[in-house]
Amino acid sequence: MEERLKQQLDFILEIDKEKNILRQTHLSGHGRRENDAEHAWHMAIMAYLLKDYANEPVDIAKVMIMCLIHDIVEIDAGDTYAYDTEGLKTQKAREDAAKERIFSLLPEDQKKELTALFDEFENYRTPESKFAHSLDNLQPLLLNNSNGGGDWREHQVTSEQVYGRQQKTQLGSETLYKVTDQILKENIEKGNIKES
Amino acid sequence: MEERLKQQLDFILEIDKEKNILRQTHLSGHGRRENDAEHAWHMAIMAYLLKDYANEPVDIAKVMIMCLIHDIVEIDAGDTYAYDTEGLKTQKAREDAAKERIFSLLPEDQKKELTALFDEFENYRTPESKFAHSLDNLQPLLLNNSNGGGDWREHQVTSEQVYGRQQKTQLGSETLYKVTDQILKENIEKGNIKES
Repeated sequence: MEERLKQQLDFILEIDKEKNILRQTHLSGHGRRENDAEHAWHMAIMAYLLKDYANEPVDIAKVMIMCLIHDIVEIDAGDTYAYDTEGLKTQKAREDAAKERIFSLLPEDQKKELTALFDEFENYRTPESKFAHSLDNLQPLLLNNSNGGGDWREHQVTSEQVYGRQQKTQLGSETLYKVTDQILKENIEKGNIKES
Repeated sequence: MEERLKQQLDFILEIDKEKNILRQTHLSGHGRRENDAEHAWHMAIMAYLLKDYANEPVDIAKVMIMCLIHDIVEIDAGDTYAYDTEGLKTQKAREDAAKERIFSLLPEDQKKELTALFDEFENYRTPESKFAHSLDNLQPLLLNNSNGGGDWREHQVTSEQVYGRQQKTQLGSETLYKVTDQILKENIEKGNIKES
């Protein structure tokens, strides 16, 4: 087998580990905790179906691959919960090291390509990145809402915390932010999210 | 919320159930059984990274969405193991009913679009469909091979059965078929796949 293909297959086998990285979100139907691969799969399909709601036109192939790979670094760095103040301080350093190790398994050109896509997602500047972040926010919100807001209650999340994170959804999609806002208001009213 | 978006979000929540549909393949590192959503996520990333090995040029966004949705019908129809002779007889009827129910949650235009993508995948005719099938075959083969061929041994799969399925990989990618053939030969030699 030629070296290039061997490197690609090594990377493909390595990222299988993402299926073991658990998030704080629970599956609908009061299911078990979701893992990163499932979350990314869900986001990529959402991207495709909801692309007309992006504030700016997007290259949908780019949004999909961005969604699919955006959590690969968590194989080494672990999942940092959106409201884990201590974890968030070291998140970037942990994820940078992971990015270097994992993407280095690929041939050099694809290492550069995936690293660039990962960085583009993180940098929140392009239409694709902003829209992908809207989906990264909306996907767990839909699951959590379907479960009566159990994840918010478990972590005693406040309206200030949740709006601090979710308000960025409007950078990618005003329409999806309206849905987000509606769901959050309902969950604050029900006491699932603590009023700040 | 407008009706169109409500339908889309209902579909998005419904397909969360795909994360509970277990396959016969085990995760690398002798892990638990893989589910359909994880398998689809893995395939879509493989499509992006390995697209240059497709026999014919492919629209990569189309291949990726095809990979992501190709098992959604299994939410109702269940996973039919590739070598389950009885299950294979009723598979089409079960999957057709599921396709109608699940895709009908979407707005009419997107129901048609996703149904067409699903049917295109099943029909094995376009370059995108053939390449997506190559990945559908290669992904579990890589995991199974990494686990010492445990899934083949458990089901006492024969070389005739496995080649019957895997030889179609060459319709989508001659290069990926060469890798497949090499892996199968090694596993026959080791006794993980029974010689027919």
